[in-house]
Amino acid sequence: MEFRTVTYQPGILTILDQTLLPKQEIYRELTTLEEVWKAIRVLALRGAPAIGVGAAYGMAMAAHQEKAENEESFFSKIEKAADYLASSRPTAVNLFWAIERMKRAAYDGRGLGAGQIAENMEAEARKIEAEDEANNRAIGENLLSLLQDGDGVLTHCNAGALCAAHYGTALAPFYLAKERGMNIRVFADETRPLLQGARLTAWELKKNGVDVTLICDNMAAAVMSQGKINAVIVGCDRVAANGDTANKIGTLGVSVLAKYFHIPMYIATPTPTIDWNCKTGRDIPIEQRDSEEVTGFGQERTAPEGIRVYNPAFDVTPAENITAIVTERGIIRPPFEENMKTLLK
Amino acid sequence: MEFRTVTYQPGILTILDQTLLPKQEIYRELTTLEEVWKAIRVLALRGAPAIGVGAAYGMAMAAHQEKAENEESFFSKIEKAADYLASSRPTAVNLFWAIERMKRAAYDGRGLGAGQIAENMEAEARKIEAEDEANNRAIGENLLSLLQDGDGVLTHCNAGALCAAHYGTALAPFYLAKERGMNIRVFADETRPLLQGARLTAWELKKNGVDVTLICDNMAAAVMSQGKINAVIVGCDRVAANGDTANKIGTLGVSVLAKYFHIPMYIATPTPTIDWNCKTGRDIPIEQRDSEEVTGFGQERTAPEGIRVYNPAFDVTPAENITAIVTERGIIRPPFEENMKTLLK
Repeated sequence: MEFRTVTYQPGILTILDQTLLPKQEIYRELTTLEEVWKAIRVLALRGAPAIGVGAAYGMAMAAHQEKAENEESFFSKIEKAADYLASSRPTAVNLFWAIERMKRAAYDGRGLGAGQIAENMEAEARKIEAEDEANNRAIGENLLSLLQDGDGVLTHCNAGALCAAHYGTALAPFYLAKERGMNIRVFADETRPLLQGARLTAWELKKNGVDVTLICDNMAAAVMSQGKINAVIVGCDRVAANGDTANKIGTLGVSVLAKYFHIPMYIATPTPTIDWNCKTGRDIPIEQRDSEEVTGFGQERTAPEGIRVYNPAFDVTPAENITAIVTERGIIRPPFEENMKTLLK
Repeated sequence: MEFRTVTYQPGILTILDQTLLPKQEIYRELTTLEEVWKAIRVLALRGAPAIGVGAAYGMAMAAHQEKAENEESFFSKIEKAADYLASSRPTAVNLFWAIERMKRAAYDGRGLGAGQIAENMEAEARKIEAEDEANNRAIGENLLSLLQDGDGVLTHCNAGALCAAHYGTALAPFYLAKERGMNIRVFADETRPLLQGARLTAWELKKNGVDVTLICDNMAAAVMSQGKINAVIVGCDRVAANGDTANKIGTLGVSVLAKYFHIPMYIATPTPTIDWNCKTGRDIPIEQRDSEEVTGFGQERTAPEGIRVYNPAFDVTPAENITAIVTERGIIRPPFEENMKTLLK
């Protein structure tokens, strides 16, 4: 990979500042917890897995810098650091998960002394990163097994290496294909309103030498109709028990187009995003976002003042439009509920 | 209507400057042929029917201002004016059509003297405008007969009053519904890359008090899935003999979504756009446009430098996805070739 989203050496967390992409590739060395908090807050560090890894290293950094006289004082500081870091992005499930896991690693070392516990915490953060990489690589391998040399693939939004410690999910097969000299042609939807496809996916694939073409969201049908697309691969935010999946707004439309043009639709996701509490997609809440995202394009205002806007952040792709859900543990085909349960047994 | 795209009084052509929409509503009084030429050139006056009407009045203005000593000198000036005006936008078929019709009106008056011929030409331009209005009103009435009070309708791009002397085509039923106190809820796709939906459709519907909600192109599927859309109505650039239609990029995708969600798809168009020389949509050439339209908007750059882009201006909706082609002469249902021939007999 030609860039690293997150790297850590004792006391220094280095991140690629994603607020400056695609115009500038600037790495920032974060050496205080406040800097890590701010990086997550302003989306300089973004993407669920990347936030998890970054927060884990942030906790390791806090432990590394803590010169506590006794363990109780040390744990008290770690708790404070955890609460503080968790407040950076109150809706990021991975953030809380990573912080909790780091606290557990800390308490598991009770009696070993602050210095050793800090070392254990760094090891735990590295383990979180390594697991993320291994999972993404496994997802990538599974996806790649569904593709052939020369295939064209459409992707939507950004479920790439910029979201994760390495590879990402939906984009992982393209990096693996590149490593092996396979030629995959990727078409990236720009993904209005926030343009993650244009700003992030196009940038990271191009940076790594993957053959990528940027299109507007409404061009996907034309590209498919010309026979240029052999598969659609997207990430996802949540999978319901019946296989319905929530992902970035526009994914539902892409799935309908794929079905119409007889193109397989693959959802790339680690198994923890399967939410058994959601029976179907109807149970997944859809966040509505600010109208300003739709009435303009970056700093450019494009719609009349006072216009009414509908701006859902996600939509739900019904299981019937999904060819397979591709996870680190295997490829799940319909019927999804049954096959997901079997795989996760 | 709360605005007028084109109005004429002897010697003065007043246009709404569409380059300033949706931020400003500025009318410009054009009193020279050069000003008319420039208005068409810079898209201050745009939309095929509106350009036709504007060019016709431009010719009437040229005739009005011409103080020729004899008819031959007058006709020579008219020919020059015609050639000059036709060079303003070399791909606009309606422009040439209107100019040719104005020349014919001029030559038909041979022997009546320059003053009378100029009056005849103004009458011909007013006739062109009146025909446009009558055609659009007829298209609107036919479309409205397919809608019910309370319906939600999705439209794409701008086939509205800003394109024409009055009403437009696809947006005509919404204005007629408003006049009659019917409530139609319109959802307008923003229509990347040039955002005619956000800039023009949203502006003109809101200006006239039509209930309009702006969405990004990739939100159409979500809105349809929620049962908010009872019909799709779009304009078109060309209809092939078999009923395949070319329209703004993204229309094909909308048609596939409409089919999937069992929503009727109506193409609004005057009969002259039926091109019998194109047997099917495969015969319609698709213009590729500059990559800069996709890599940003206005002054805002959003994609990495050097990224490859695919930017077709139009796509082709196959006849199988079209419920009806709605013209000024009636509603045409499949089989289109047969029924178009019957209607136009």
